[in-house]
Amino acid sequence: MIKSRSKKYIEYIATGSELLSPGFIETNSSYLAGKLEELGWKLNFKTIVSDRLEEIKLIFQTAQKRSWLIFISGGLGPTEDDRTRQAVAEILKRRLVFHKEILKNIRKRFESRGLTMTPSNRRQAYIIDGATILENPNGTAPGMWLEIRGQIIILLPGPPSELKPMVDNLVFPKLKPFQRRKFLQAVLRITGAGESWIEDRIKLIYSKLPKKMELTTLASPGDVQIRLSMPTGRDEEKDQRKLEEIKKEILNLLENKVYSTDGQLLEQVIGQKLTANKMALACAESCSGGLLANRITNVPGSSNYFLEGLVTYSNRAKVRELGVPEELIKAKGAVSEEVAAAMAKGVREKAGADIGLSTTGIAGPGGGTMEKPVGLVYIGLASSDGVKVERCLFKGQREQIKYQATQKALDMLRLKLMEIEKGR
Amino acid sequence: MIKSRSKKYIEYIATGSELLSPGFIETNSSYLAGKLEELGWKLNFKTIVSDRLEEIKLIFQTAQKRSWLIFISGGLGPTEDDRTRQAVAEILKRRLVFHKEILKNIRKRFESRGLTMTPSNRRQAYIIDGATILENPNGTAPGMWLEIRGQIIILLPGPPSELKPMVDNLVFPKLKPFQRRKFLQAVLRITGAGESWIEDRIKLIYSKLPKKMELTTLASPGDVQIRLSMPTGRDEEKDQRKLEEIKKEILNLLENKVYSTDGQLLEQVIGQKLTANKMALACAESCSGGLLANRITNVPGSSNYFLEGLVTYSNRAKVRELGVPEELIKAKGAVSEEVAAAMAKGVREKAGADIGLSTTGIAGPGGGTMEKPVGLVYIGLASSDGVKVERCLFKGQREQIKYQATQKALDMLRLKLMEIEKGR
Repeated sequence: MIKSRSKKYIEYIATGSELLSPGFIETNSSYLAGKLEELGWKLNFKTIVSDRLEEIKLIFQTAQKRSWLIFISGGLGPTEDDRTRQAVAEILKRRLVFHKEILKNIRKRFESRGLTMTPSNRRQAYIIDGATILENPNGTAPGMWLEIRGQIIILLPGPPSELKPMVDNLVFPKLKPFQRRKFLQAVLRITGAGESWIEDRIKLIYSKLPKKMELTTLASPGDVQIRLSMPTGRDEEKDQRKLEEIKKEILNLLENKVYSTDGQLLEQVIGQKLTANKMALACAESCSGGLLANRITNVPGSSNYFLEGLVTYSNRAKVRELGVPEELIKAKGAVSEEVAAAMAKGVREKAGADIGLSTTGIAGPGGGTMEKPVGLVYIGLASSDGVKVERCLFKGQREQIKYQATQKALDMLRLKLMEIEKGR
Repeated sequence: MIKSRSKKYIEYIATGSELLSPGFIETNSSYLAGKLEELGWKLNFKTIVSDRLEEIKLIFQTAQKRSWLIFISGGLGPTEDDRTRQAVAEILKRRLVFHKEILKNIRKRFESRGLTMTPSNRRQAYIIDGATILENPNGTAPGMWLEIRGQIIILLPGPPSELKPMVDNLVFPKLKPFQRRKFLQAVLRITGAGESWIEDRIKLIYSKLPKKMELTTLASPGDVQIRLSMPTGRDEEKDQRKLEEIKKEILNLLENKVYSTDGQLLEQVIGQKLTANKMALACAESCSGGLLANRITNVPGSSNYFLEGLVTYSNRAKVRELGVPEELIKAKGAVSEEVAAAMAKGVREKAGADIGLSTTGIAGPGGGTMEKPVGLVYIGLASSDGVKVERCLFKGQREQIKYQATQKALDMLRLKLMEIEKGR
């Protein structure tokens, strides 16, 4: 299907000066990478470029020389800084052709909302000669599909809310016939262990990996991922067995540190375990400030097992809401093993939950002392077996410390639920 | 300083197969872009490439032809899939030279933690011939700085916790002498208005923009940013005045919808206003599930004005914690104007706060009905003036609905605090 041997790559170009600005997080590429994996393909390159015509042309020209499948998004809007149409047309040496029907649709869209179309929207009715129009029910910019001597070029709108449905409904059905072979992969998610500990444990695996299998590890504060991936050969079942075998060996080596092998997040894992065991949860947070409850409630259906969360930031709230003795706070300090225990016990009893989780610590940047430095967090878990508290010392910025505290709390809960499951 | 006219760009290459995997969010580039802006430079291109040697070589070779300043990160570790050193050396046709001292430092690092260095760490002691070594106090991989005929190539470790300090402490001090001119910019952050409303209001501005000024808008659910940027010319003060003038005109056109002009987030803005007015806040969340408290407590020092947050997910908790009458929930439903009002009032009174904020709604994906669809959220604000509730209908996924609910709650608080400030 693909005629040119020199064009062996798949790449994505995102246009838009704002994408190169500090603070911007781009999500389309992650989405496209996931869709491509469904077809057994890997995204080879992703390039972000500004709105400037010359720069878009330069990047597109480079891509056009090396890749058989090119996605380019953004710059299809009505404004002056929307120049992708023009850049691609110039490199391909094709004209832009005016399509009356497109303008009519855009006008309709405006009128249905009681608005008047602006003259600048006329720009959006120009289509690269020879392109198939990809209709955009969620915006004014239509996409385009070009097939030129085995090379496929797809122009997409930039906003995720427009790009994603277009990719799902129009682009991938058209790409499916090009699918050649499958791609197998597995993701192991780990918490409660550092990257070097993990590397040390799994280093024996490397020599056992089939040549075409890739193993990559990815560490962030509180979380490590091991990703295995492999294109299937003639015998897909055999490849699948091999992948499972390696996965099992890693699981054995890392014991109970692996919390999911199917891409699930820790909050999803504990959600399933709580549901399966018909147990209810409540939490009392100080330093994590609501992040624990937020992560738990990000899971659809969490209202079935999550009763309530108390963010007792002030000492008064700890006393009033959770029954933590005032003298205890005075004697030991709000950041202490004893207060963490009292918080977990207090919220469990108050909410009538099976498990109570608590966090108290110093998220920083201020508030640290020699004795109790920034990053010191006590995490409590109360159950019918009593209360357990762990002392942790996390590194990083305020938000990273908050995150690691919740990761540890959820992992203590996971291990407790595993213990309960075993005991049954 | 820069000798080649054809090499006029600045680009960043991030290596690592995991960066092209679904679900991964890359943050180094955003950080680098911010640092570059401090020097008045713009990042022109950012490319993400896998760990494969041939692909890194291809991408680096392309960069090397067009850019005078190249950052390349990742692939400096000890493992088999760390191939950036080799790729760059091969394209530059330079040898890799073994440095005894580096190996000694790595060994020391391991020993200080009671660990033994692995033989694979030896790889990290190889440096591209002619490169200046950038020491890495936060990891084993040293960075490298190469200056070749006016072109600067900087190799950096991939993990943000190692890259950022190296960039701050070693790379930027070395880049500063290359700074030529300044870059002015302003960011206006807006909530409570859609992109089309904003476009419509500010369209008159476009014709007034100086030719070298760029205006871009960036919309996400619940938030719109307008970014103005301009390189300074001979008269920097005049440019600064022009930027301020345009900024003021936009502010006038958008009235009180602009919540910050200095890049601050809404939670930071309300934090400052609460501090200035010596007011205390408490919140009661249902559908936002802790995200509101989490955002508020992401701000350092928030313990000075944030008393507590209650995530009353169950109806029982709403009754017990907030004193919402059980009959009211039965009669109107937990998602109702009346319950939102009772929650805001309840938490304000209980916590002894000046302001109580509440959210109750249907975050989805389940739980929606014809009458009360997914995305319906009531937001309450209680103050000494009484209670105000707004009814909102948000679009998007569960987490987007949660986010928009907190954005609206924080904005209602901002407007209330502005009203209070005016009345004084």
